[in-house]
Amino acid sequence: MPTLSVHRIGMAHPGDVAALAALFDAGVVAPQAVRAVIGKTEGNGGLNDFTRGYFTQSLMALLAERSGEPAASLAARIPCVLSGGTEGALSPHAMVFSVGQGSGARGLALGTAFSAPTPPEEIGTGAQIAAVAETLRAAMHDAGIARAADVGLVQVKAPATTPPGADPRVVMARSRAAAALGVAVALGEVAAEAARAEALLRDVSLFSPRASISSGIEVACNEVIVLGEADGWADGIALGVAPMADLLDLPGVVAAFRAAGLAADPCVPEAERHRILGVIAKGEPSRDGLIRGHRHTMLGDTDLDPQRHLRGALGALVAAVAGDGCVFVSGGAEHQGPPGGGLVAVLAAKR
Amino acid sequence: MPTLSVHRIGMAHPGDVAALAALFDAGVVAPQAVRAVIGKTEGNGGLNDFTRGYFTQSLMALLAERSGEPAASLAARIPCVLSGGTEGALSPHAMVFSVGQGSGARGLALGTAFSAPTPPEEIGTGAQIAAVAETLRAAMHDAGIARAADVGLVQVKAPATTPPGADPRVVMARSRAAAALGVAVALGEVAAEAARAEALLRDVSLFSPRASISSGIEVACNEVIVLGEADGWADGIALGVAPMADLLDLPGVVAAFRAAGLAADPCVPEAERHRILGVIAKGEPSRDGLIRGHRHTMLGDTDLDPQRHLRGALGALVAAVAGDGCVFVSGGAEHQGPPGGGLVAVLAAKR
Amino acid sequence: MPTLSVHRIGMAHPGDVAALAALFDAGVVAPQAVRAVIGKTEGNGGLNDFTRGYFTQSLMALLAERSGEPAASLAARIPCVLSGGTEGALSPHAMVFSVGQGSGARGLALGTAFSAPTPPEEIGTGAQIAAVAETLRAAMHDAGIARAADVGLVQVKAPATTPPGADPRVVMARSRAAAALGVAVALGEVAAEAARAEALLRDVSLFSPRASISSGIEVACNEVIVLGEADGWADGIALGVAPMADLLDLPGVVAAFRAAGLAADPCVPEAERHRILGVIAKGEPSRDGLIRGHRHTMLGDTDLDPQRHLRGALGALVAAVAGDGCVFVSGGAEHQGPPGGGLVAVLAAKR
Amino acid sequence: MPTLSVHRIGMAHPGDVAALAALFDAGVVAPQAVRAVIGKTEGNGGLNDFTRGYFTQSLMALLAERSGEPAASLAARIPCVLSGGTEGALSPHAMVFSVGQGSGARGLALGTAFSAPTPPEEIGTGAQIAAVAETLRAAMHDAGIARAADVGLVQVKAPATTPPGADPRVVMARSRAAAALGVAVALGEVAAEAARAEALLRDVSLFSPRASISSGIEVACNEVIVLGEADGWADGIALGVAPMADLLDLPGVVAAFRAAGLAADPCVPEAERHRILGVIAKGEPSRDGLIRGHRHTMLGDTDLDPQRHLRGALGALVAAVAGDGCVFVSGGAEHQGPPGGGLVAVLAAKR
Repeated sequence: MPTLSVHRIGMAHPGDVAALAALFDAGVVAPQAVRAVIGKTEGNGGLNDFTRGYFTQSLMALLAERSGEPAASLAARIPCVLSGGTEGALSPHAMVFSVGQGSGARGLALGTAFSAPTPPEEIGTGAQIAAVAETLRAAMHDAGIARAADVGLVQVKAPATTPPGADPRVVMARSRAAAALGVAVALGEVAAEAARAEALLRDVSLFSPRASISSGIEVACNEVIVLGEADGWADGIALGVAPMADLLDLPGVVAAFRAAGLAADPCVPEAERHRILGVIAKGEPSRDGLIRGHRHTMLGDTDLDPQRHLRGALGALVAAVAGDGCVFVSGGAEHQGPPGGGLVAVLAAKR
Repeated sequence: MPTLSVHRIGMAHPGDVAALAALFDAGVVAPQAVRAVIGKTEGNGGLNDFTRGYFTQSLMALLAERSGEPAASLAARIPCVLSGGTEGALSPHAMVFSVGQGSGARGLALGTAFSAPTPPEEIGTGAQIAAVAETLRAAMHDAGIARAADVGLVQVKAPATTPPGADPRVVMARSRAAAALGVAVALGEVAAEAARAEALLRDVSLFSPRASISSGIEVACNEVIVLGEADGWADGIALGVAPMADLLDLPGVVAAFRAAGLAADPCVPEAERHRILGVIAKGEPSRDGLIRGHRHTMLGDTDLDPQRHLRGALGALVAAVAGDGCVFVSGGAEHQGPPGGGLVAVLAAKR
Repeated sequence: MPTLSVHRIGMAHPGDVAALAALFDAGVVAPQAVRAVIGKTEGNGGLNDFTRGYFTQSLMALLAERSGEPAASLAARIPCVLSGGTEGALSPHAMVFSVGQGSGARGLALGTAFSAPTPPEEIGTGAQIAAVAETLRAAMHDAGIARAADVGLVQVKAPATTPPGADPRVVMARSRAAAALGVAVALGEVAAEAARAEALLRDVSLFSPRASISSGIEVACNEVIVLGEADGWADGIALGVAPMADLLDLPGVVAAFRAAGLAADPCVPEAERHRILGVIAKGEPSRDGLIRGHRHTMLGDTDLDPQRHLRGALGALVAAVAGDGCVFVSGGAEHQGPPGGGLVAVLAAKR
Repeated sequence: MPTLSVHRIGMAHPGDVAALAALFDAGVVAPQAVRAVIGKTEGNGGLNDFTRGYFTQSLMALLAERSGEPAASLAARIPCVLSGGTEGALSPHAMVFSVGQGSGARGLALGTAFSAPTPPEEIGTGAQIAAVAETLRAAMHDAGIARAADVGLVQVKAPATTPPGADPRVVMARSRAAAALGVAVALGEVAAEAARAEALLRDVSLFSPRASISSGIEVACNEVIVLGEADGWADGIALGVAPMADLLDLPGVVAAFRAAGLAADPCVPEAERHRILGVIAKGEPSRDGLIRGHRHTMLGDTDLDPQRHLRGALGALVAAVAGDGCVFVSGGAEHQGPPGGGLVAVLAAKR
């Protein structure tokens, strides 16, 4: 009977996995039990953010050393979904998901799957949409999640190999968009016929309220992590997910924490903070340049990338409610919620 | 009997004062009644942020055209305190303070004063501290504010002329620090003997909880605006001020709105938002690199200035509570509150 | 009989036109004689670079004060082509072109013309291409330049009004591209049938080797300045123009200075530098990501705009040959020379 | 009898050492023969540039795999001096120095040495100056370089551990400065009594014209590489070094290439480019804000670090002369040449 555990580790720099080594040393986590990692590194979050690759290399080297399995083999089966950019109040950290033996009738389950490698010309196409949908189905099977309705959250890391001459921002956005529609198709939220390449970044009415997508050059295929309720898993972790209507939707943030069983009002009380196991949020600058009718300047800033703007703002809201900056807040929410809005997901230990 | 009015205007770019011209055209504000302007422009907030100078030039040209008074004369008597940087959810805007005829026994008063020009070598010295203290006393006299206890908020724009070879960030910070201590001395919050140049940026126990300071190269002297209660002013505007203990102190933000009589829980309800006349907040990245024990990355980012990080994060918190991004949020809170924390001030129409 | 004069002025900041006021005070330039200004301001060169608008406002206010003509009228007839971004060795400055009485049979002539205002939906379309071609013909007529072969250089400032949701970099690039093809059509370098909207940013074989285009939100129509040989103008200024094959084509830079009659080897000797009246260069990062087979990183940098990269590099080459940083170097050379290359133009006083 | 070889490798990203693996595979370089690496990675060059650490980790992992020696042991004896930042025309690459068996009476020698770990409080102090001087003497001994006069170039990577609250730019600059004075002391260019902590960043008359220093958080001690003439080394590589008087000193750049026996005029002819084995240049923005009397904007740019400005400009000059962007150009030339100027060193295969 599997039991899911989640541990958050801090890092002094993107090559620092000492905190995980300490968990191994203390016997808190078994190296062989690690199934997935989701984290924030302190890069710029763009195409030339190499902090993601650096952390992944360091993580796999540690896992290889401790488990005896070659790093390449580990990297091919353990998703390491990193989002660069810890602007403002955010703090570099990673959530380590491990699965051990336990007992329980039904609880939060985790599954993972990798697509075949995505050729650059398939990024942001119907082929990627289909590949992500298929990979999510495999991940659900891996977790034993029976129905789409039981899925709580899908985290994808999608490739963003950029051919010479292409705009990297566009490649990264199209890859996120295709992966999000792939999730929406697999979960029955969007009809497969509607989720065509032509709709990408255009038809903002198509979205999954349960998808969180990052893209980057450090992966070659679509890596999928699914969290949801399944039979046979130990019961101990609550997952609360709520949409954000716009970037200032503080009540939406509070709602996700409450959905995970935390008494946020608006902040999680200090005495309850230890129950927070992980927080994942996505958002995006509204494309019409307005928030509640007032002009924002995120999209036209030559010096500061729109996603860096976004993460700094959204990150502060989520961190203020959570009580600290160890929250995974990522920009680029194309087709991952209502336009200009986003999603907040909270993992909490049940009382 | 004077009456204070505050109007917020948006701007399409830093040279756009059409919204103020429209207020003049509609007879809502008389050009001759304008006494002070506090605003956010969409620059980077640093030494090479020329959006502040551009807006000031545009504003003074409009006032000159409408009032017949030369622009140079207007600029020498009307403080125009601008802070660059509208990261994240912030929206470029300005608060226009005007004083007209009214009736009332006691209410919120506004006073202004300018110091003599500050030579570059006096920036960040005891001479600047003394000059700001003296200028604040003159502004209080201008407003008719009788006692330091009646002062609610002091907004200063301090000069930051940077000699060749000097680090502009340091010059700007020292100028803000000296102005803050000048305010603290004039208000009796810090003893004049303690407010020495040696304490600047070092003795963080010395601060004014009522000072909000910006610095920039576009002013040559210390420009002071004071808001506080005084006899003979019409009663109609509430000023609420509250400290923030750290960057995630959302309850502190909420407290300032409540102190101004608004029912924030945590957000100001939509039906009450029209009563908000202006919001001013200051904050700073904690200098030990930690927020509640977790590492932040604001101070060591070669590509993104610490103050840009800070404004994006703090701005989102304040905007979420206020309900939109037309809030004046400024970094560089040296000696303007507890270290790593800040201040929020809210002007609201009384019911 | 007209005589063209060119004076370079430095600026302490983008609102500083004191050096031009001094030229007026000294009688060196008559305010009424100013016909065009081309300059570099110290912004970021992108859509949110407001240093261009600030300088223009300051310039027109000075001209209005000295000439008695309203600023709006001056702005509608005197092109002020500014390029933001003085990275690296570049120095903020402007070239002031004035036309006075003189004597001569044939010499370097200057003409200017403005198109009708360009609606946002026409930017980067065939309509803009046609408008620029027509405006250039008007400018040639204004100068008395009889034939396309007599044209030496065409400088255009094109509008870049960006609708909400549009990528400002793309809008700016398309506007420059359309203006460049407009120049090429008017000069007979590209057939009108080939210069269609579909070719913009795609068919890099279409270009004008005599076009230098900047775009920005601070202009509402296409402003054209043409320099070329014409009868009846005094002879005294040489214009040398040479293409650059790629970003490292230092011999190309040297060739332009030599074409203007300066003894560059590779640098212009100190004794000859006073003869340099103005230098204009355009370049662009090669779109295949390679320079002479080696990877460059200009196109994929999330923190540093490609054009800022480009200007810093190209600016140093041109400044080193010229002998100082008062050179107009601008990125975004779409259809203004061979792909990945650019153009250098030098104005020098004849011996 | 040792023979020095230098090979330049490109990299697709900072974790890519495939080109070196290919050299090993082809038998061109023996893994055991690698003695030092100097390279440019595509980060921002500042404190939060983790591309240096990423490349180092990747390099040591490859060397460990191929040599059987543990990575930690390799890292403790093979200096890997990386400078982040490939602005403009620069191309990410590394120079691999290996020493094999050969024959010769006297030729270019390479020596390396590591200091003891530098505690954070010793960075930028007399202790660091002394440690670097002693480490350089050890490196000279390692190479068999008998006299200071035989030294051609000293490359140091110095630690820049930044305590909380400290300005990382200042820490990095002080570390470079102390290392440069350490070199100057060991080479007899500056008297040990003059090279005190008080002189750091102040007395610009003290400098070594043969020092090239980088600093970063990825090293814990001072790593020194020395190149110079020594008996018993094979003769085959020429080292030319020349100072640059200021950032526009193109003749200074050309002189270094000529000193290495290359026919630069001003560019190295294509037929000779294969003889270039490596190019190292250092420079700095002049601290008085002027280049040849004209204002530059490198020091006061809130969005673009001065060193990024500098590398983009200087890089283009050096790359244009060399013929491609595989040149090591680094900012931060404190005490490494005349103020505002720098140094260029060229390694070339003798004919």
